Amino acid sequence: MADIAKQLLEDISGFPTLSPGETIAQNRLLDVIRRHYERTGYAPLETPLVERPEVLSAKSEGEITTQIYGLRLLNPEEGADDAKELALRFDHTIPLARYIATHSREIAFPFRRSAIGKVLRGERAKDGRYREFLQADIDVVGAGELSPLHDAEMVAVIAGIFTELSIGAFTIRINNRKVLAAIIRHMSENEDLIAPSMRIIDRLEKVGEEKTLAALTELGFKESNARMMLDMLIAKRSIAETIALLEQSLPGEAGVEELKAVLEGIEALGVPEENYAIDLSIARGFDYYTGSVFETRLDAHPDLGSIASGGRYDDLASAFAKDKYPGVGISIGVTRLLLRLIKAGLINAEAQTPARVLITTAERDALPTYLNYAKELRAAGVSAELYLEDKPLDKQLAYADKKGFPFALIAKREHLDKQIVILRNLATGDQKELSAADLTNYIK
Amino acid sequence: MADIAKQLLEDISGFPTLSPGETIAQNRLLDVIRRHYERTGYAPLETPLVERPEVLSAKSEGEITTQIYGLRLLNPEEGADDAKELALRFDHTIPLARYIATHSREIAFPFRRSAIGKVLRGERAKDGRYREFLQADIDVVGAGELSPLHDAEMVAVIAGIFTELSIGAFTIRINNRKVLAAIIRHMSENEDLIAPSMRIIDRLEKVGEEKTLAALTELGFKESNARMMLDMLIAKRSIAETIALLEQSLPGEAGVEELKAVLEGIEALGVPEENYAIDLSIARGFDYYTGSVFETRLDAHPDLGSIASGGRYDDLASAFAKDKYPGVGISIGVTRLLLRLIKAGLINAEAQTPARVLITTAERDALPTYLNYAKELRAAGVSAELYLEDKPLDKQLAYADKKGFPFALIAKREHLDKQIVILRNLATGDQKELSAADLTNYIK
Repeated sequence: MADIAKQLLEDISGFPTLSPGETIAQNRLLDVIRRHYERTGYAPLETPLVERPEVLSAKSEGEITTQIYGLRLLNPEEGADDAKELALRFDHTIPLARYIATHSREIAFPFRRSAIGKVLRGERAKDGRYREFLQADIDVVGAGELSPLHDAEMVAVIAGIFTELSIGAFTIRINNRKVLAAIIRHMSENEDLIAPSMRIIDRLEKVGEEKTLAALTELGFKESNARMMLDMLIAKRSIAETIALLEQSLPGEAGVEELKAVLEGIEALGVPEENYAIDLSIARGFDYYTGSVFETRLDAHPDLGSIASGGRYDDLASAFAKDKYPGVGISIGVTRLLLRLIKAGLINAEAQTPARVLITTAERDALPTYLNYAKELRAAGVSAELYLEDKPLDKQLAYADKKGFPFALIAKREHLDKQIVILRNLATGDQKELSAADLTNYIK
Repeated sequence: MADIAKQLLEDISGFPTLSPGETIAQNRLLDVIRRHYERTGYAPLETPLVERPEVLSAKSEGEITTQIYGLRLLNPEEGADDAKELALRFDHTIPLARYIATHSREIAFPFRRSAIGKVLRGERAKDGRYREFLQADIDVVGAGELSPLHDAEMVAVIAGIFTELSIGAFTIRINNRKVLAAIIRHMSENEDLIAPSMRIIDRLEKVGEEKTLAALTELGFKESNARMMLDMLIAKRSIAETIALLEQSLPGEAGVEELKAVLEGIEALGVPEENYAIDLSIARGFDYYTGSVFETRLDAHPDLGSIASGGRYDDLASAFAKDKYPGVGISIGVTRLLLRLIKAGLINAEAQTPARVLITTAERDALPTYLNYAKELRAAGVSAELYLEDKPLDKQLAYADKKGFPFALIAKREHLDKQIVILRNLATGDQKELSAADLTNYIK
């Protein structure tokens, strides 16, 4: 085996390695997300990372088409299939569309599925973008039709997750692309302006009002119309005020009816009022969305961007199947969310171990006794590591400190003889003498 | 968007898609594995799927070198970095070695880490081999030294997992490569025969005794010696008998002392006797292992092969670092294990939903009441799906049947008025009238 230059061992830009502490924090985050997805009835569906390039290309649009990774064997055996027909997924939606197209007969619709897994995109590694990241999605897909109550349930699921995560107040911003299109149409009769102006509006928060105005004028809007439109989109109003305004200015518009149905559903599903709002400026980049669109912000951390986004689409499996499959979904970019929450100090990633207790082993011959302590703790749901190296006690305690265990259990000969243990709180240094029988209760 | 030929939508050979039922079963399996890993103190470490080819090549050996997938952008933007420096991991060990080499100063040794994630190998897709599969590993790595008690703990963790999975009696077979090498050396003075004869012995179970004998003879052993060696390797003996035999025939051999220390540790850690045995014929393919080796079989399903394997290595990070990092680890091939257990009928993958109850919505205006039932159930840890389409009750129940919900909750106008619900057991068809207040208790 050859030695290898040190810089080759460093992380590759865009492909993050999480420390044990970060991974533990990630798993806690995923546990909450997964529990909410499951308890609402979204079934997990595990599709491979690898898809055919033709499948990915048939449903990709915009810059993503330049970001698809293909696979090839680096050192193929002679005569081996080369891997030119393989590529890596860049989202969970295309694998879902393929699954529905190939399994439509067995599926009971509406089909609710969750997908938690890695996706890969060959983005330029700037702006802290990741090329490999974990994405946690749910979608519900109907055969031919799908009630707007499903859009409402997406909002309820997001609200449930971020309430439980306790990372501060958040607002789910809701819009409908048909409403936004109607507003744009109101300001210019040129239908061709709708799609590009949505893309401009999508970047409003990033680039600011003035630049957006300039871009819209350049696109072909009268400046006064562009100004009026922006004013309408960004004015702060209550939900009732916004709905009243829309009913007045866009009478009979289908998007307004959809938006109202979704909002009624959200209320019926009991989502607290402070967790959601209408935001007419939400556009989402993809042309793919055709109705409801959602974004979620932490009120105290707008700089984090949207932490859970999604929307409604008319036809999931177009290009793959003749039948029409409308759906609605949301996606949480877990890797980005995790690392930003850690950086913002909103979640803790300090402890380098999942265990609560290090059981030190001061007397080597008492291993079965120490093991019994471990067994009792584990049976009670308390994870416990048994120190197995033959080292002096002070080295064992230094190990416990460095790794961030909350507690260390100490039982030297004199304690073993009396059937007691010392439990040391490693954060405070406090020690407590416990009978072996009381140990589990105390830690719990 | 272009239409796409139907056969392009089928699964690619070697890249399995799991159904929702299979994914639910997989998650149950992973939950058990992960809980045992964590409660013993193995910290999860999330490394990327993508590594540098130089890193993977520096520590790969044998046929795996021909199975490494490289990445390249399929349709790179002009001027984009091409992706020639990227490749996909084929195991969790090399990423661990890289992590230790680059973080040795921060790490508290012994370093215990778990890794649960996908790995990819461009194998020929025969023998039901997968090219993408989920692997769940733990390893513990020391700085310079590592007690044989860690080898013993690996056996205890495997025993804990397979006991909890309740998929039948199992035996963890334990050997030591130094012992096997000494036995081979006993039969021929040619040191060069050791490595190739271990590879032959590794295939003993697959190809049978006669072919193994022929291969050993062809390699250069006297036929009588090869026969004597095989007899020694495959004879059934108790642990005590095997140890006595080894002490007598290989006096002073270091491997025998190691094996004894590991077995003493296993006993001290309380692993039930029926769960493990010495098997002198266990070799493991890789030259990489230098001491203990483990394989695990289901007693009633030897055809499933080893369901959890591993061993001890002298130096994890050779090629990456100057210091010596001995370690021991085990690996469970989750995808293969899952699909074989389902096929053998040992685990169930029928239910296509994680929810226990479908709450039907016979009266559209009573949605808040139905939602309250859902909330109560979910708060009590019972996952519940709320049916949101506007369909007649019989269609809702047909949906529940097709998807495999254990229960359906029915509340028509007359029930709502009396504040009762009907709970239908969908497997038996039995119905029970419950007060709304008793609902949760009954289902739990």
